[in-house]
Amino acid sequence: MKPIAVVTTVANVEDARRLARALVERRLVACAQISQIESVYMWEGALQQEGEYRLVCKTVASRYAAVEEAIRELHPYTLPAIYGVALERVHGPYADWVGEYSGG
Amino acid sequence: MKPIAVVTTVANVEDARRLARALVERRLVACAQISQIESVYMWEGALQQEGEYRLVCKTVASRYAAVEEAIRELHPYTLPAIYGVALERVHGPYADWVGEYSGG
Amino acid sequence: MKPIAVVTTVANVEDARRLARALVERRLVACAQISQIESVYMWEGALQQEGEYRLVCKTVASRYAAVEEAIRELHPYTLPAIYGVALERVHGPYADWVGEYSGG
Repeated sequence: MKPIAVVTTVANVEDARRLARALVERRLVACAQISQIESVYMWEGALQQEGEYRLVCKTVASRYAAVEEAIRELHPYTLPAIYGVALERVHGPYADWVGEYSGG
Repeated sequence: MKPIAVVTTVANVEDARRLARALVERRLVACAQISQIESVYMWEGALQQEGEYRLVCKTVASRYAAVEEAIRELHPYTLPAIYGVALERVHGPYADWVGEYSGG
Repeated sequence: MKPIAVVTTVANVEDARRLARALVERRLVACAQISQIESVYMWEGALQQEGEYRLVCKTVASRYAAVEEAIRELHPYTLPAIYGVALERVHGPYADWVGEYSGG
């Protein structure tokens, strides 16, 4: 049961909390950490600089597809950033806890 | 086209925004997220504890060397932290968007 | 000497700074970045939503076990989140600096 961190970003803290709660309550992820960021990117030819919130969710690698699908379903953006980062080393009891709470 | 996250840190938000805008405008990275951190480290034998800003930039793995070179060129530090974290899983349309906007 | 990022979370900024200083002073990690997060997770059947602080520490991969052990020793939680993320690409001089300051 290899844990993975699944990351997405949303425009405001209400959406971040709503998304985090839904993923945890559905036992798709064991936990989600919300943090404040400022995003710089191009959109329709113009440079954008906007406040956003990042969610880092912990689940097991085998659940990535289900978590991505739920984020797409719940996300207000048409093209959300969603990606997974492998956790190469994990404290055993923590890995077990992540597995227990993201097993659906 | 495997996306990668390239990370660096700078001393203040002005430098963070200047660096982020330059990398996005040069289409070296598709986007950059800025966040506030506090760094603890040793420098010349003394413990340092200073506010900094972290940039997390998304590009494609084949562009890492070009992005690192540009960060070194633009960065105010003589020894900047610059590293890349592989994105093991990525939402397809988002990966395409990153590829489109970091292709130079 | 492959650098790795070791991540943990604590309840307050005092614990974050105490942990960061101890790991850096013991030369287990070269640096630690502290940032503010909000964590959402299940605990004893109820949804929790609490402020926390994340530590991202840079060390060399061969030191992961020693860093994890020290975090478990110093951490106030009974079940702390502790994991390592591989740094796939690293600016050479920065990798050397991490190696020099996390070699014990």
